[in-house]
Amino acid sequence: MNNDLILLGHGSGGRLSHQLLDELIIPALSCDGPAGQNDAAILDSPSGRLAFTTDSYVVDPVFFPGGNIGDLAVNGTVNDLAMMGAKPLWMSVGLILEEGFSKKELAQILASMRRAADIAGIRIVTGDTKVVPRGKADRIFINTSGIGSIEHSLEINGSHALPGDNIIVSGTIGDHGVAVMASREGLELGTTIESDSAALNALVSDLVSELGCAIHVLRDPTRGGVATTLKEIALQSGVDLLIKEDSLPVKTAVRGVCSILGLDPLYVANEGKMLILVSPESAERAIGILRRTPLGTDAAVIGEVTGKGTGRISLETSSGGARSVEMLSGEQLPRIC
Amino acid sequence: MNNDLILLGHGSGGRLSHQLLDELIIPALSCDGPAGQNDAAILDSPSGRLAFTTDSYVVDPVFFPGGNIGDLAVNGTVNDLAMMGAKPLWMSVGLILEEGFSKKELAQILASMRRAADIAGIRIVTGDTKVVPRGKADRIFINTSGIGSIEHSLEINGSHALPGDNIIVSGTIGDHGVAVMASREGLELGTTIESDSAALNALVSDLVSELGCAIHVLRDPTRGGVATTLKEIALQSGVDLLIKEDSLPVKTAVRGVCSILGLDPLYVANEGKMLILVSPESAERAIGILRRTPLGTDAAVIGEVTGKGTGRISLETSSGGARSVEMLSGEQLPRIC
Repeated sequence: MNNDLILLGHGSGGRLSHQLLDELIIPALSCDGPAGQNDAAILDSPSGRLAFTTDSYVVDPVFFPGGNIGDLAVNGTVNDLAMMGAKPLWMSVGLILEEGFSKKELAQILASMRRAADIAGIRIVTGDTKVVPRGKADRIFINTSGIGSIEHSLEINGSHALPGDNIIVSGTIGDHGVAVMASREGLELGTTIESDSAALNALVSDLVSELGCAIHVLRDPTRGGVATTLKEIALQSGVDLLIKEDSLPVKTAVRGVCSILGLDPLYVANEGKMLILVSPESAERAIGILRRTPLGTDAAVIGEVTGKGTGRISLETSSGGARSVEMLSGEQLPRIC
Repeated sequence: MNNDLILLGHGSGGRLSHQLLDELIIPALSCDGPAGQNDAAILDSPSGRLAFTTDSYVVDPVFFPGGNIGDLAVNGTVNDLAMMGAKPLWMSVGLILEEGFSKKELAQILASMRRAADIAGIRIVTGDTKVVPRGKADRIFINTSGIGSIEHSLEINGSHALPGDNIIVSGTIGDHGVAVMASREGLELGTTIESDSAALNALVSDLVSELGCAIHVLRDPTRGGVATTLKEIALQSGVDLLIKEDSLPVKTAVRGVCSILGLDPLYVANEGKMLILVSPESAERAIGILRRTPLGTDAAVIGEVTGKGTGRISLETSSGGARSVEMLSGEQLPRIC
């Protein structure tokens, strides 16, 4: 029996499960230590409204420049809560491990989950671990579910875009997807492109407290990228959008890899960026708030809501032409998160 | 492109993902229809305390006598909330699908999730779907996380067992594990043993409202079975227990399959049963409450808390001897839930 690897027995619910929990998982993730393992965590209900979200992570490779599946999962769930204007409070961690996965890598992943949770100010309060035989999963899959509290009365969601709204992106696009793809394909780039995986809740908190009801929509353009996310917003709100290609912030290296791999940065996943739809008179202040922090230094207005409509998005190209933007069709980048 | 199967593109976040969501997943699971797909569900915070739990399900086979991975997941999360004395309110559903999985089977699974949720009175409010390439997962894995509200001031958990408490099991043991194993091994039994997968929250609600603080511990003996769960409680509470083998309710057919497969029913998973540790003077009333309902007709007192201690469990065997009961060691029944 190899003591460095995950065994089927670690998922049995019996002695080995308890050992893995007590020696590795709980010390890594929990603020409260191993006391009181029960079927559910007990929490004080916050006043006001709750936000509740879930995401599973199956990214390949598990470790990539700028992060790993663990901090990706924490940041993803934190951001889903933040995009509804909620303050992230508590999260769960569900692990599905393949028999033979390295305990050392598991420990690294859990440590970065805890670090990411501490940075975002969210507490990991409950969890579950399953193990499946070799070949029945790919190393590790993680589900994170999160609860946040909404401490204001604003309605921030995808159906609140208004004609005239400015569309802001909080930074460069495509970094995460390109970092994962380059790492998976083993591309020798001469330069390392890192994932932008990061928690956006502090930035959202500043925007909401300083701009209030001028913020109409917040959404993080993950799978499907900026193009697909904007299309969702346009359809949900019943508006048409105009995007200016020249205004899209894209790192030179990311643009280079995209052209090698035949990808359009508009469709590539981001994990630490958000789209903000804001009243035109507040757009400049929003950009100012974003640029105060490292996560928002490349923030830019990339377009506007042209009016009520049927969800059309028009892209004004660098050459002065125009083309229609649709949702990502098919699977451009499998297992990007 | 085969229209009956799950494709990688269904996990892209793009057009195919939206199609799968709008045509299959949301109509099957949601009470509210497809309106308003956002990053998180917004819910009215209940007063009092919250319970929050998560579980991933990887059961093999996906369909088994008495249920499938879908209702198993819903009942499992409902029961984890109920075991803390909470009223189940909302749950999330995270799907990890293997490329090539049948859409028809997915629809069946989702329909039974919805049915199970309706029976338990819990609402499915948020979800996520990922797809991994063939051979990178085994058909379907499901994570369910749940939120419940605790509407009383009782403290029900694994550390509250008291000397003298009676130990009650709410019905026959081993049904779920044996049903899954028999189905996996293709055993010809002449009779069908069905999983006991069921939601226990209504039963818990009756116990709590009628017996109040006489209820000290509630726990569902899933992975690891009654033996492992009792060991957890004994260790958490710092007490010793005595169990009487003759008093354990086990169906004849289950006992038969256990002897064929070399299993001890005490270690076999249950998915619709609970252990109740209750003041001795309320044990008879508890049995009466349980036996009023089909889920509790075989309820029985199986032992007692003999005193403060170090978590030892002694089993009084049918022959009058005694043996020590430990946690499940190794992996008796992989992928039982």
